[in-house]
Amino acid sequence: MNILDIIIKKRDKQVLSKEEISFFVRGVTDGAIPDYQTSALLMAILLNGMTAEETAALTMEMAHSGALFDLHTVDGYKVDKHSTGGVADTTTLILAPLVASLGVPVVKMSGRGLGFSGGTIDKLESIPGFRVDLSASEAISYAKKSKLVLMGQTDNLTPADKKLYALRDVTGTVDSIPLIAASIMAKKIAAGADGIVLDVKCGSGAFMKTQQDAEALAKTMVAMGRHVGRKVTAVISSMAQPLGMYIGNSLEVMEAIHVLKGETAGDLLDVSVTLGAQMLLLAGRTQTEEEAKQLLLQQIKNGEGLAKFRELLIQQGGNPDILSQTQLLPLSPVSLTVHAKTTGYLSQMDTAKIGRASQETGAGRAYKEQPLDFGAGIIMHKRLGDFVQKGEPLATLYSASKNTCRAAADRMDTAFTYSTNRPDIPPLILQILSAQPNDRA
Amino acid sequence: MNILDIIIKKRDKQVLSKEEISFFVRGVTDGAIPDYQTSALLMAILLNGMTAEETAALTMEMAHSGALFDLHTVDGYKVDKHSTGGVADTTTLILAPLVASLGVPVVKMSGRGLGFSGGTIDKLESIPGFRVDLSASEAISYAKKSKLVLMGQTDNLTPADKKLYALRDVTGTVDSIPLIAASIMAKKIAAGADGIVLDVKCGSGAFMKTQQDAEALAKTMVAMGRHVGRKVTAVISSMAQPLGMYIGNSLEVMEAIHVLKGETAGDLLDVSVTLGAQMLLLAGRTQTEEEAKQLLLQQIKNGEGLAKFRELLIQQGGNPDILSQTQLLPLSPVSLTVHAKTTGYLSQMDTAKIGRASQETGAGRAYKEQPLDFGAGIIMHKRLGDFVQKGEPLATLYSASKNTCRAAADRMDTAFTYSTNRPDIPPLILQILSAQPNDRA
Repeated sequence: MNILDIIIKKRDKQVLSKEEISFFVRGVTDGAIPDYQTSALLMAILLNGMTAEETAALTMEMAHSGALFDLHTVDGYKVDKHSTGGVADTTTLILAPLVASLGVPVVKMSGRGLGFSGGTIDKLESIPGFRVDLSASEAISYAKKSKLVLMGQTDNLTPADKKLYALRDVTGTVDSIPLIAASIMAKKIAAGADGIVLDVKCGSGAFMKTQQDAEALAKTMVAMGRHVGRKVTAVISSMAQPLGMYIGNSLEVMEAIHVLKGETAGDLLDVSVTLGAQMLLLAGRTQTEEEAKQLLLQQIKNGEGLAKFRELLIQQGGNPDILSQTQLLPLSPVSLTVHAKTTGYLSQMDTAKIGRASQETGAGRAYKEQPLDFGAGIIMHKRLGDFVQKGEPLATLYSASKNTCRAAADRMDTAFTYSTNRPDIPPLILQILSAQPNDRA
Repeated sequence: MNILDIIIKKRDKQVLSKEEISFFVRGVTDGAIPDYQTSALLMAILLNGMTAEETAALTMEMAHSGALFDLHTVDGYKVDKHSTGGVADTTTLILAPLVASLGVPVVKMSGRGLGFSGGTIDKLESIPGFRVDLSASEAISYAKKSKLVLMGQTDNLTPADKKLYALRDVTGTVDSIPLIAASIMAKKIAAGADGIVLDVKCGSGAFMKTQQDAEALAKTMVAMGRHVGRKVTAVISSMAQPLGMYIGNSLEVMEAIHVLKGETAGDLLDVSVTLGAQMLLLAGRTQTEEEAKQLLLQQIKNGEGLAKFRELLIQQGGNPDILSQTQLLPLSPVSLTVHAKTTGYLSQMDTAKIGRASQETGAGRAYKEQPLDFGAGIIMHKRLGDFVQKGEPLATLYSASKNTCRAAADRMDTAFTYSTNRPDIPPLILQILSAQPNDRA
């Protein structure tokens, strides 16, 4: 077997065997295959596609390319959740404590933000003292005790994915559904998930701009679940506007606390509860979606969700006083407010642009390893469909310096579209796909 | 401008601008673009194609990536010829002296053989004393005097093509018509050609297996000629069987001498005269194809072609006595003859397999830089459509050792197909395409 034959086979639109995919992934992992051959194959995969069987084989090979995180000593059905990334999309900080407080273990490895999309690990690190770099044994001991662990990736988790992703990033081969699906699923499988709820974001602030693309990815992932022996449910949700009202790191932690306290409702709560309900269904904790949602909302009302979050903070070194005194979280000193330029309905938001503006305040990264300003970001004041008067505040930006705040505000200024008639707003939850129809209400 | 945007543009089936192609070629030449990005773009080009304008821009950028061979001090219309490569395809050694003997300068840089395909430079080096490594000034002084130079590539000719070809070879991106066309044309333009006659080989012993593929390449090249200001004529000729009867290096020189002496006729002569006639037409030496062919055949009868070949030998240090004493050319000591396995018509030859058998005798290379046995090769005794008796000799193989000769003979043994009915043999010249209809008879 040699890599040139494998490249030519995929170039010629043929289906690769399990053995060929294994040869490829092992060669990438151990460095035997040079990058220029890998990138040629990645481009051929992007343009000619992969079958469900090929994608599943790629996933499993990537999952096994490094050390597996063995959660079998933790009791219960381990259910994980992944979002394809959006703006003000901080559902993990809300649903993880809610689900765990109902007895379903959530041991979740998260990533960092890049570009307009935020990352859970960055948000957690904005909490004074919070440690995300846990050893495997530490994480497992916490999981047994509290059923809730939020952490960064352990070392040597899916090294093949790390290498492939770095190469895809610089060779125009990111936007391939089989490669995206395999990358997500490999990490979840390696991290020990029995079931996975996938939040596929769709709209101006998401990687998937159209519902068609989002559906294609969702279907691929759900179908793949069957091939790799994991239950997968995919929720397609709107990213036509920022999901929550707070964008940034400490700012999103603040909003999550507001939601867990029951002080705030809206889209962020709705998506969190929708995803959390699917997690409960996969874990067999409830039989119907409606029941699952009620249980989750009840954990807000009775304070159990907040209590579980407090337990998480204490467990991982974070200051639990932030729950009562959010001013203990950082907030950048310079602020600027952008105002409506005209009177009318807010008919569209360029959510990616809002994400870029947040990045510009210091809350996000233009390149990997860029240091963050944890207290920077944006508080939105309006939502799509709101009627605004000219000059009314739309959003307030927070940043470390006047220059960065001004630049971000100038960008924000161009992110809104107004209309004289009430606009149609896309529904928040566009679709739920599951390979387990009998698990659904 | 950056290479990632260019990769993504081609990936998304868009047309690259002249500036983008220039940026790419310059980045490849000076090493600014890493191989993994280049190979991703090459795969995207192979799968998504290039327009005639893009291919022309790529060609001209590659032609100008190194030093141009300036032939403007040599009088006359400089016409070059290129074959896409075949077996026993030694037309250059015949047509170059014939055309030059008619006053049309032929200053030709040739390449080495690889795989089943031979190379003119290797054949010339099998002539005792013959020098192919000429400096530019030496070549130009010869061209002014004799009008005939056959040589290897000068240093720093199309370095972009050298780098791209090396990468294409290991990334499955050889078989792209725009990339093949650009590579051929860039070298011809850099080598100073005003007009180019392309011999596109088609059949079992060629890179283009079908007439459709051959036609696509031929059309691309002819169309490109218009874009780059060069006259291009493409001849599509059959490689359903070895073109001549002698395969190897010294063996092909021997057959060329036989043809130039008028001792041998057949397909090799016919294709040589067809291509030579197109060269004369491009150079404006004659007005009709028929007249051009008559002129060339006359140069055989009157000995002028052979005299020009003798002049070439003396000019470049080769022993001219080989013309009267071909035993001065090397011939490998061990020989074996393969015989017909059954009585019937020879209905098919696997010409690539015959080429591989020749390679196995030592006449060809499995990898670059592999040393050759100049005296090795095959003499064919039969042609397609011949009726043979079981046990009749089909071919005799020459090699340095019994082992290599045996292995090659075993391979040869399986290259023939027999039939009881007289088979249809494809015509030798399948098509002639020219951008200059008024140059054609």
